[in-house]
Amino acid sequence: MAAMLGHNQYGKDQIRVVRVLRDSEPHTLVDYNVSVRLAGDFDAAHLEGDNSNVVPTDTAKNTVFARAVDDAVVTQPESFGLALARHFVDDIAPVAQARISLELYPWLRLTHGGAPHPHAFARSGVHVRTASVTYDGTATWVVSGVRDLTVLKTTDSAFEGFYTDRYTTLQPAADRILATSVTAQWWHARADRDWQQSFDSVLDALLDTFAGHHSAALQQTLWLMGEAALTADPDVNELRMTCPNAHHFLYDLERMGIDNPGLVFHADDRPYGMIEGAVRRDDAPDAGAAFDPGQGW
Amino acid sequence: MAAMLGHNQYGKDQIRVVRVLRDSEPHTLVDYNVSVRLAGDFDAAHLEGDNSNVVPTDTAKNTVFARAVDDAVVTQPESFGLALARHFVDDIAPVAQARISLELYPWLRLTHGGAPHPHAFARSGVHVRTASVTYDGTATWVVSGVRDLTVLKTTDSAFEGFYTDRYTTLQPAADRILATSVTAQWWHARADRDWQQSFDSVLDALLDTFAGHHSAALQQTLWLMGEAALTADPDVNELRMTCPNAHHFLYDLERMGIDNPGLVFHADDRPYGMIEGAVRRDDAPDAGAAFDPGQGW
Amino acid sequence: MAAMLGHNQYGKDQIRVVRVLRDSEPHTLVDYNVSVRLAGDFDAAHLEGDNSNVVPTDTAKNTVFARAVDDAVVTQPESFGLALARHFVDDIAPVAQARISLELYPWLRLTHGGAPHPHAFARSGVHVRTASVTYDGTATWVVSGVRDLTVLKTTDSAFEGFYTDRYTTLQPAADRILATSVTAQWWHARADRDWQQSFDSVLDALLDTFAGHHSAALQQTLWLMGEAALTADPDVNELRMTCPNAHHFLYDLERMGIDNPGLVFHADDRPYGMIEGAVRRDDAPDAGAAFDPGQGW
Amino acid sequence: MAAMLGHNQYGKDQIRVVRVLRDSEPHTLVDYNVSVRLAGDFDAAHLEGDNSNVVPTDTAKNTVFARAVDDAVVTQPESFGLALARHFVDDIAPVAQARISLELYPWLRLTHGGAPHPHAFARSGVHVRTASVTYDGTATWVVSGVRDLTVLKTTDSAFEGFYTDRYTTLQPAADRILATSVTAQWWHARADRDWQQSFDSVLDALLDTFAGHHSAALQQTLWLMGEAALTADPDVNELRMTCPNAHHFLYDLERMGIDNPGLVFHADDRPYGMIEGAVRRDDAPDAGAAFDPGQGW
Repeated sequence: MAAMLGHNQYGKDQIRVVRVLRDSEPHTLVDYNVSVRLAGDFDAAHLEGDNSNVVPTDTAKNTVFARAVDDAVVTQPESFGLALARHFVDDIAPVAQARISLELYPWLRLTHGGAPHPHAFARSGVHVRTASVTYDGTATWVVSGVRDLTVLKTTDSAFEGFYTDRYTTLQPAADRILATSVTAQWWHARADRDWQQSFDSVLDALLDTFAGHHSAALQQTLWLMGEAALTADPDVNELRMTCPNAHHFLYDLERMGIDNPGLVFHADDRPYGMIEGAVRRDDAPDAGAAFDPGQGW
Repeated sequence: MAAMLGHNQYGKDQIRVVRVLRDSEPHTLVDYNVSVRLAGDFDAAHLEGDNSNVVPTDTAKNTVFARAVDDAVVTQPESFGLALARHFVDDIAPVAQARISLELYPWLRLTHGGAPHPHAFARSGVHVRTASVTYDGTATWVVSGVRDLTVLKTTDSAFEGFYTDRYTTLQPAADRILATSVTAQWWHARADRDWQQSFDSVLDALLDTFAGHHSAALQQTLWLMGEAALTADPDVNELRMTCPNAHHFLYDLERMGIDNPGLVFHADDRPYGMIEGAVRRDDAPDAGAAFDPGQGW
Repeated sequence: MAAMLGHNQYGKDQIRVVRVLRDSEPHTLVDYNVSVRLAGDFDAAHLEGDNSNVVPTDTAKNTVFARAVDDAVVTQPESFGLALARHFVDDIAPVAQARISLELYPWLRLTHGGAPHPHAFARSGVHVRTASVTYDGTATWVVSGVRDLTVLKTTDSAFEGFYTDRYTTLQPAADRILATSVTAQWWHARADRDWQQSFDSVLDALLDTFAGHHSAALQQTLWLMGEAALTADPDVNELRMTCPNAHHFLYDLERMGIDNPGLVFHADDRPYGMIEGAVRRDDAPDAGAAFDPGQGW
Repeated sequence: MAAMLGHNQYGKDQIRVVRVLRDSEPHTLVDYNVSVRLAGDFDAAHLEGDNSNVVPTDTAKNTVFARAVDDAVVTQPESFGLALARHFVDDIAPVAQARISLELYPWLRLTHGGAPHPHAFARSGVHVRTASVTYDGTATWVVSGVRDLTVLKTTDSAFEGFYTDRYTTLQPAADRILATSVTAQWWHARADRDWQQSFDSVLDALLDTFAGHHSAALQQTLWLMGEAALTADPDVNELRMTCPNAHHFLYDLERMGIDNPGLVFHADDRPYGMIEGAVRRDDAPDAGAAFDPGQGW
């Protein structure tokens, strides 16, 4: 036998680029964390130490900052990612595929004397908007998303009628707190969309559904949220969600002679439940390279 | 010489108690991270292994959860802290002083079908509200605060005319981005206040001032914010602020032949500047035990 | 069109189980972080809120603690994972596939009076040992690994002769610091191995190779380390590595009139390079479910 | 009333400087995280936006890198801190006091072919060494320390005979796991010491004592460790320790019909106990500015 090189890729991670748009009052800004991953003809670098095909990751960094001057692409993570991915593949011969992953941190406009201020902001922490764009010279996959969207229902959630075995000690709950920090990613059928409008409609569908349904389990909640997102945006092919179950345990105050009818809870850290699932149109094509499998870890 | 025991204290840290208020529609919730620190007659535990005066930290935890059932104290961190501090000192003989430190994580009410929903929420990340209450059986110190309040101005900030020496390479900046993550704590003159109203007025003063002034340095910004807070709330004696300078460096695109007139910035992580200062009324008494010096680290 | 449920899985994450082995002096301990992920017949839970097939994640937690009493499996992460995966699939009808992911935190034995102490330990932070075991009722995939293994060479590393374009400003380096935090995972050809011996031989191969070669690029270093691991352990089919390039930039002291011939460096945080690659035997079968693609994010 | 400026200070935090010592084989390296805090005549910067006395934090950063070329001071955190503190106060008129805080990350030498390698290293995570040096133009305070030193005893620890009240549900434990992550800081009587020798002797005393005693409570353990450190190093005036109690709870397997005689534990995250205390020589002077009270938070 001999060792051989398998799949490989490289790039620059966590490029923190902030772009100010100051042509007109009021100012706006976009605040990104961009990562670049390139695959292609890089065997010689690994096997022979020959770097002639290797675009330095420092160049990838410079490129991200350089392209951020372009007003036409920088204001939406999907269009910024598209411009970058196309550049790396179309302009650099050894690069066969590029994936650009972006996080966008939203900022809120501050007020001064009761009126919106033209150039002062506070960072909103209610969610991070994400996107990833993959391009192989022919096909393009655009995925939008959200992470760190922490939501909670104080009622309208149950977990009953589950499978039991010798290790089961959990009691069924007819009424419990349901809390999760949603990570969702959705793959678009097209690459020429109004990205802001699409993002807003999917986010609204997720939140409206989370609020409005009775949950029999976090699995059902995930399904209903995904189904609502597909209904809200007909140009989304598939949505994948990760929903950790942030347990809120009713604290046992009876030991101290105190009644606790659904009032006081312990918000536990670890371990936590984890519910993951995909919701897709029944006529959607195979997702191909849309979602990042990484190297398998 | 002989070794002797110096100052000592102990308690329970990071008790994650969530209280739902469900007596009336709509539901509300308060989401706390509470830490308890007790000092008093605990020499024997250290020197002789005699625990007879030691309230277990597990008991402190139980106590925090038990007192969270009380509607009259739980909705404001300052009143919750006051109730807990008074209990530990007044009801437990060996405890001479208690300090209760609280973080309150704000939640936003979700909408459903366009209307506010009675029991669904998203966690707001724009800031964490804090409080600490210290009580020694006689005196009480109540401190309110905020942390992780990240703010940014795209202009109206400069840094010029500074001291230079042989190690100085920084160029003066007539117009720069100013960004910081504010930690502020303010000590009240009284312990019987409308805590929500006070918090809102101080927070508004901090943000309105950050937005509305021209900054010659982060030191000046800190001073003006503190002065505005004291003006807004006449029952605050002193405010202490920590303002890391979150550097946004204009990215050098000229090397690539690209003009960058204040558009594209690198948001750097480390190292970062750090500006700390106190602003107080000129007639304020000594702060005593109001602010936590810890053990000196 | 209609929405349909795609791949889904669920489980419990980050179960922190510590097992003491105290039958004989000296004591030993194993310190685990275990995550469980189950896939199978769970459509009804999503689509209809019918939980009758759903093993609660609380049961998964109980099961992990319960199986940790078994001396025959608990001392190696791979054997612990095998026992758990087989239980979930073989004993619980709705479960078609289980993946158990484990982190093992190593501890060092303390000394007392110069001799090894029988029951006192310090946690070693030099690396975390990992394993994941996947079982679908027929096939078994066992993957061992390491993460947070931070290594550095003060010389014997270069990066020259690379591809350049209009965005390239990096200068070639004939002698630089090379530093990375290695994450590696390797998939075994068999499930009945001496896991400790295998782990030790792979780790030694990785470290010995990192130290002993001249690096023309981190890509070459990754390849050589992987090749050495396959040589050291003939029962490993494939190894996948993630090597962030932890940049150490020579600090420009010339501006201050100070010579800096490879002495003083800035260890930067972000952005950082990222090199990923797989090294496999040329006769290895397809990796199947060995490596975790997650849900694609 | 009028607002007035109270105590203020500023500087640069988390300067990540790595120094290679390559004059002779084998190479060695020191890996630092340095923070600088300056106090002095800075009222005008706050009150009037006059920066003429303000040394830029960028200059502080440059200075730390520049002084790292000096072999005579850079190899020990205490001597590096002394050189920096003296520079800032003695050479810069507006600076009245400087505090330099340093973290040193230890690295282990790798082997190659069984022999120590001259220039390859792995980062040790067993502890971080710390130091802080404070100087006001006259007096100097040098404090050495350690943090993230995580230690555990599988037996020889109890917690019994404690105070009980209506909120107490904890059962006495005659034999339990004791685990903590030690942060310790010790203040030296002199500023001209063999810092490495002192550090080694104090660390050995802490660990040897942790291993060798029977603990009636973590308070007693803290005291005994501190007393041993003072005995081991007669030039240490005072030692301050923070010892979180990292709870390991015996997992209740009896519910599943499984015996668990001190074998399987849950390592819980939050809340956790916190024990803090100072141990000092009975003839030690007041600690003055030795330990950092910060701004009170």
